[in-house]
Amino acid sequence: HVDEEVTLCGWIQYLRQDLFVILRDFSGLVQILIPQDESKSELKNAFLGLTVESVIMVKGRVRRRPEGQENKKMSTGEIEVCAESMEVLNTCRKLPFEIKEFVKKSEALRMQYRYLDLRSPRMQYNLRLRSQMVMKMREYLCNLHGFVDVETPTLFKRTPGGAKEFVVPSGDPGKFYSLPQSPQQFKQLLMVAGIDRYFQLARCYRDEGSKPDRQPEFTQVDIEISFVDQAGVMSLIEGLVHYSWPEDKGQINVPFPSMTYEEAMRDYGVDKPDTRFGMKLVDVTTAFQGSQIEFIKDALLKPSGCIQAICVPEGTVRTESGDSHSYVPTPQLNLQCSQCSLISKQINLFKQLFLMAQANAGDLIFITAGPRENVRPLLGKLRLQCAELLESYGVPVRDPSVFHFLWVVDFPLFLPKEDNPEMLEAAHHPFTAPVPEDAHLLYTQPRKVRGQHYDLVLNGCEVGGGSIRIHSPPCPFFSVLLVIRDVIAFPKSFRGHDLMSHAPDFVSEEDLKPYHISVVWPSADIEGQQDNSM
Amino acid sequence: HVDEEVTLCGWIQYLRQDLFVILRDFSGLVQILIPQDESKSELKNAFLGLTVESVIMVKGRVRRRPEGQENKKMSTGEIEVCAESMEVLNTCRKLPFEIKEFVKKSEALRMQYRYLDLRSPRMQYNLRLRSQMVMKMREYLCNLHGFVDVETPTLFKRTPGGAKEFVVPSGDPGKFYSLPQSPQQFKQLLMVAGIDRYFQLARCYRDEGSKPDRQPEFTQVDIEISFVDQAGVMSLIEGLVHYSWPEDKGQINVPFPSMTYEEAMRDYGVDKPDTRFGMKLVDVTTAFQGSQIEFIKDALLKPSGCIQAICVPEGTVRTESGDSHSYVPTPQLNLQCSQCSLISKQINLFKQLFLMAQANAGDLIFITAGPRENVRPLLGKLRLQCAELLESYGVPVRDPSVFHFLWVVDFPLFLPKEDNPEMLEAAHHPFTAPVPEDAHLLYTQPRKVRGQHYDLVLNGCEVGGGSIRIHSPPCPFFSVLLVIRDVIAFPKSFRGHDLMSHAPDFVSEEDLKPYHISVVWPSADIEGQQDNSM
Repeated sequence: HVDEEVTLCGWIQYLRQDLFVILRDFSGLVQILIPQDESKSELKNAFLGLTVESVIMVKGRVRRRPEGQENKKMSTGEIEVCAESMEVLNTCRKLPFEIKEFVKKSEALRMQYRYLDLRSPRMQYNLRLRSQMVMKMREYLCNLHGFVDVETPTLFKRTPGGAKEFVVPSGDPGKFYSLPQSPQQFKQLLMVAGIDRYFQLARCYRDEGSKPDRQPEFTQVDIEISFVDQAGVMSLIEGLVHYSWPEDKGQINVPFPSMTYEEAMRDYGVDKPDTRFGMKLVDVTTAFQGSQIEFIKDALLKPSGCIQAICVPEGTVRTESGDSHSYVPTPQLNLQCSQCSLISKQINLFKQLFLMAQANAGDLIFITAGPRENVRPLLGKLRLQCAELLESYGVPVRDPSVFHFLWVVDFPLFLPKEDNPEMLEAAHHPFTAPVPEDAHLLYTQPRKVRGQHYDLVLNGCEVGGGSIRIHSPPCPFFSVLLVIRDVIAFPKSFRGHDLMSHAPDFVSEEDLKPYHISVVWPSADIEGQQDNSM
Repeated sequence: HVDEEVTLCGWIQYLRQDLFVILRDFSGLVQILIPQDESKSELKNAFLGLTVESVIMVKGRVRRRPEGQENKKMSTGEIEVCAESMEVLNTCRKLPFEIKEFVKKSEALRMQYRYLDLRSPRMQYNLRLRSQMVMKMREYLCNLHGFVDVETPTLFKRTPGGAKEFVVPSGDPGKFYSLPQSPQQFKQLLMVAGIDRYFQLARCYRDEGSKPDRQPEFTQVDIEISFVDQAGVMSLIEGLVHYSWPEDKGQINVPFPSMTYEEAMRDYGVDKPDTRFGMKLVDVTTAFQGSQIEFIKDALLKPSGCIQAICVPEGTVRTESGDSHSYVPTPQLNLQCSQCSLISKQINLFKQLFLMAQANAGDLIFITAGPRENVRPLLGKLRLQCAELLESYGVPVRDPSVFHFLWVVDFPLFLPKEDNPEMLEAAHHPFTAPVPEDAHLLYTQPRKVRGQHYDLVLNGCEVGGGSIRIHSPPCPFFSVLLVIRDVIAFPKSFRGHDLMSHAPDFVSEEDLKPYHISVVWPSADIEGQQDNSM
């Protein structure tokens, strides 16, 4: 645009040396040259009276910057605009904080001045990225795959079961609408109505307070398809994610790896494993077989009693003295245990344990004894907690720039009722179809029946899930849903308007009491003696 | 696909002569040939046991239909599928109504069995058309014009003024959220936040019962732009409508014609005129100047008193006897008036009246006397009512296949308060900027100040509207909004999930009493005598 007359509107980013104004709008920055000519002193003074973040309209002429003054870091760094006239559209008074990335603001302040906070490059990037990703998803579903975008009502009847719902008083005293937890019923009716392929970016509501990955209102990519099987849905969703994936986040590969629920619980103690790092759960029951340690004996006597461990590589840190023999457990992980001395005498047991856990010098091992259904989730939580703690000490555990997508499949169709573990209830919802090969077990061994339910997990977050519906008792094959949770549930770099701090869901001491001991392997020699620090 | 093995799933549309099944899915119909071979009698019997609308899966081979048996009306009319196996996915029992266009159903029945009603070709077409139009709108805004799609919260604070809002009890006793009437505040904050170009397909809520063109929850294309003027927004919206316009509805031309509020009120008695037909309002005050008729004299003495008329072409119909001299007024329009005989004596007045109204033989003229602000809206309503009545008698007035888009501009900035006409209130919202040339009248003649507000009208429906905002007292130029109402407000062929009957908002007799007389011009001769039927 060199030599062109232009009109620019935007916010003042900087004022520099009475010579330049840097103007910002949605598309970026540009340098405005303040005229130094005597005849334009009025215009110059107007510029000098400006404050940062004021909104102005400048008319001027574009010119190439003098040689050597280009700024290669700026996309408009080769040009500048010589101001010819300027109008102040709005003056900015003193702001509660500067609009700069490096200025740390409290969350409360950011929320109070949300309209200023959103001016930051990071928030602008997030909002625009979300808009573009959602647009690509729509193109994929609507234009490439013939889905019909149907807006379903949000003032509706209460759905029995599920989350607590917001209610809306109707004009009819004593009667209320409910805001939907999801468009579940509507989309299944749409299948009956022959829409075949439905999608919606659906607003959903749950009156359950804010959680890091779920706010009271959130948006999900809501899909329902007739005449399809689990493999068909999974490949559709892989295509969807692949198509809408932002270029600047690097390539992702499809198909995504797949893991059964049983494998996920066995190796990671959770049904949404973060597979960016190891520290898998190891069953070390055999090492303790025949052990005389009282609480271990007790644990193994219980039904499904077992002993499991995780090994935290470099889980111990050197003291500042640099003494290589003086390891201390990572603070906060230093759980006291009166029985440690008892264990520490069992050298052979230790040998076996370290081999099974593939432990090296400086590693930290957690051992847990108890019923399998308790031990696994607990070690699963500890595993994540260890990763966070190590990272907070600067040890790289999870690469924040990689994206590990993972399908978790073959969920149990039933789980024990929370308030009455003798009884069963649907693990997801009561219309999830069983895996056909397991259908014959429905009335004899219902705990063994797997459901045609599948979750999509990204770096340890459940970002989607769905199931094949029961459409008739004998033939579990009809229509499916795939819900991708709001971009809010994506890792930090994807979050749009969510500013909730991601407080990790720490294991409470209460949780830990009955099960845990911590063992710190103290020396470089796996055959060696235990350290006195225990 | 001739000679290919295919698997088809769908609904049974017809069963024909024990030979064919017509299967339907979202993409259309296909003919399945039932095997007649003795060896396949089991499969044949399975087909013969089927009921219409049952859901089946058929595997078979595609073949070209025998010569002469092609069906040119069917897109798959050149082929058929020879069934090799069939599975019943769901059996259809007796339905409350047949899924056929020509079977008339009551609205209540359609609503009760919405999932069956939506199977009809018309509803399928509407839902799919809506989805496609909305997708095109998004492409235009997001991909072609750099708009950012931002989802704003729906659990929010109450907005003072405006429509009645739905409330949602919060966890905090005595405190409530409001469901938004529109994302007004959020989008203006987004402008402050530097989003520059925002759009959203926004769900809005008004607790005001259902109206034909506004349901308690509805969706609008919600737009806000920084640094733009009225002409810029209008051309953006013309582009949006043009880009997303469905091919099968014919070409529409941009730019759309424009009319001032004053012109619309003068010619059509309404700010959203249906310009598909004439019957414009005519001021016939001069014809009655000096009239001795008491109520006319009275009316003209009042401030802004006037006499206006509309001429309804062919507004009278012949009786069944065919007697050409025996016209009767269209039923329901035959408003009795004790003063008719008085008027009918004034032949000269009549001559002038008919000339001014450009009336021909068989036309019907309505004359109204009173203050202009009452007379115009009343004749405006009557004009629409006449069009509907004529159409119900088979007289073509409005072509249902044409789409007359129209901008209405230069709205007054203030209107008299409803409960106190001496006072003024903002005609739209209090942050609409005045037209710059009128700004100096703000404190002296506020009634004369025009606002930078504009409405988009389609065939007499307000389908959109917006305004330039006040961003600072002296300079009304900053950001604008354009709201296109939900597709629901489009004419019938565009409606998606709206099934409300469009009961016309008839003028009540109460309304008519103080103002109206009807004059029926009875014979073919404009110079002739009035008919006895008066």
